Amino acid sequence: MSRVLTLTPNPALDLSVRLTTLMPGSVNRSQESSLTAAGKGNNVARVLARHDHQVAVSGFLGRDNQGTFERAFAQWGVEDRFIRVAGDTRVNAKLSEADGRVTDINGPGALVDEAAMVQLLEDIDARCDAFEAVVISGSLPPGVTPEWLSALIARLGTQDLPVWLDSSGEALVQGVRALPALIKPNEHELAECVGRPLPDESSLLAAARELQQGGIENVLLSLGAEGVVWLFDGGALRARPPKVEIVSTVCAGDTLLAGALHGVLKGWPREKTLRFATALSADAVRRIGVGRSDIEDFTALCDAVCVEALAT
Amino acid sequence: MSRVLTLTPNPALDLSVRLTTLMPGSVNRSQESSLTAAGKGNNVARVLARHDHQVAVSGFLGRDNQGTFERAFAQWGVEDRFIRVAGDTRVNAKLSEADGRVTDINGPGALVDEAAMVQLLEDIDARCDAFEAVVISGSLPPGVTPEWLSALIARLGTQDLPVWLDSSGEALVQGVRALPALIKPNEHELAECVGRPLPDESSLLAAARELQQGGIENVLLSLGAEGVVWLFDGGALRARPPKVEIVSTVCAGDTLLAGALHGVLKGWPREKTLRFATALSADAVRRIGVGRSDIEDFTALCDAVCVEALAT
Repeated sequence: MSRVLTLTPNPALDLSVRLTTLMPGSVNRSQESSLTAAGKGNNVARVLARHDHQVAVSGFLGRDNQGTFERAFAQWGVEDRFIRVAGDTRVNAKLSEADGRVTDINGPGALVDEAAMVQLLEDIDARCDAFEAVVISGSLPPGVTPEWLSALIARLGTQDLPVWLDSSGEALVQGVRALPALIKPNEHELAECVGRPLPDESSLLAAARELQQGGIENVLLSLGAEGVVWLFDGGALRARPPKVEIVSTVCAGDTLLAGALHGVLKGWPREKTLRFATALSADAVRRIGVGRSDIEDFTALCDAVCVEALAT
Repeated sequence: MSRVLTLTPNPALDLSVRLTTLMPGSVNRSQESSLTAAGKGNNVARVLARHDHQVAVSGFLGRDNQGTFERAFAQWGVEDRFIRVAGDTRVNAKLSEADGRVTDINGPGALVDEAAMVQLLEDIDARCDAFEAVVISGSLPPGVTPEWLSALIARLGTQDLPVWLDSSGEALVQGVRALPALIKPNEHELAECVGRPLPDESSLLAAARELQQGGIENVLLSLGAEGVVWLFDGGALRARPPKVEIVSTVCAGDTLLAGALHGVLKGWPREKTLRFATALSADAVRRIGVGRSDIEDFTALCDAVCVEALAT
């Protein structure tokens, strides 16, 4: 059991709506709509807590609709250290039609003021001895700059806390400058991060290696159904998941990251860690929500993951 | 100050989303998204509470996301007598695009079981002396039949409680059989209720008069921007609102009903009541949410309502 802090700067209430056909401009009736406390760092926290780690969750939470989050945190068994800000936490709606078409509508998030940012830093400073790793995941809300994120990562680095960063766009670009211990881009995020198109796998691997050699110890490159490549000092591993029936890919990346961190915290060999994380992520794809390892066929799922060493 | 019970069988969390253009199948970014405790009866309760009535709210509420409602009820100053049921209260999303197109996506609502229905009836029986009027408003959730609604209205009637009903479809058809003291259909709901097309105003008025003469003391026929007609024993009044800038018509009908009930409970003459309710509803159209009478130009708004007697 390890102690982990997850930071979700811009959490969300996820609204999943299932309907036959979306008719813009009309009154549509959905078959199902449910609201869950989410945000990428919170998803990671949920997986880690289920694997018996002692997890604290933080970031910025809108005071006006915090109830759903508070109940979820209590249910997951994580410590709520979110800094409250005025207004509502955003709602991200995902509309799934019968033909498989998915429409996402993502909200902007509550505005975070200077005082809240200071409060979060003070809380981390006061508590950083309590953690063995920090995960920072997701986008930045209005008011929080990529530079602030970069300074935060640097600050955690000086306290010898390994930071695992999963973000995109300018937040990833600036975050990378502060040399987190791990980043987990997908192919689009990696291309954005290095500022050039990466049309094929060899260019992707070369760009990931550049970042790794620039001082980021671990690059976990997620390639969707093609699996994941883990680049580290002196080597690289590639894992391919077994084919599974896709129900929802929403939490697959967060589950992958949480699974990998679980293996690293347990001190597992890299091959075992990557196999576990890939299987857990494959399970996440089979269901609504994060992946689970406490299921009957999990060992079979792990065995079905193909892991090989890559020359990069 | 009067004591009123509002029943919202199928409440909703309203999600208002503002975005430039809805692109189905893509990731859309909204400029704003906010979640409010709603449902037609709750909107009525909110207006009545603001006009110093002592209001209790009831109906069926999903236990899993009740927090937003509980905070809203406390803020509005209404007594929460909702019966809790398993699951989530539905979310109704309203997507407003820059060009004025609006897409509604309404959820089905939590399933209500027999035990919850019995509990609601028992609670009303135990408390019915405490109220001077009951408002029943909105659709019925899964599990609650139009016949149950009709029986409920009849039961309240035997206890000499005037019931104001605002519903649609089969719920209105069955509800009308139990002879509530007032119904508030719009033109479509009235046509559905009488089971034939009502293509013009004279056919609408004739149908409303039939219902009134059938034993429903008051029919409040809402005609949108064309105003409202109030038919009662021996007469009818028509009110036309002044033109206002339309921001949202979502709560206009609920505000109209609440305003009319306010006037009736105060013992105002019908003309004054209808003028007030129409002005309050016109104000609701100018804003997100219910109408307000505590605003600077409310007297002017009342004066601008044109009320005339109708021969029907």
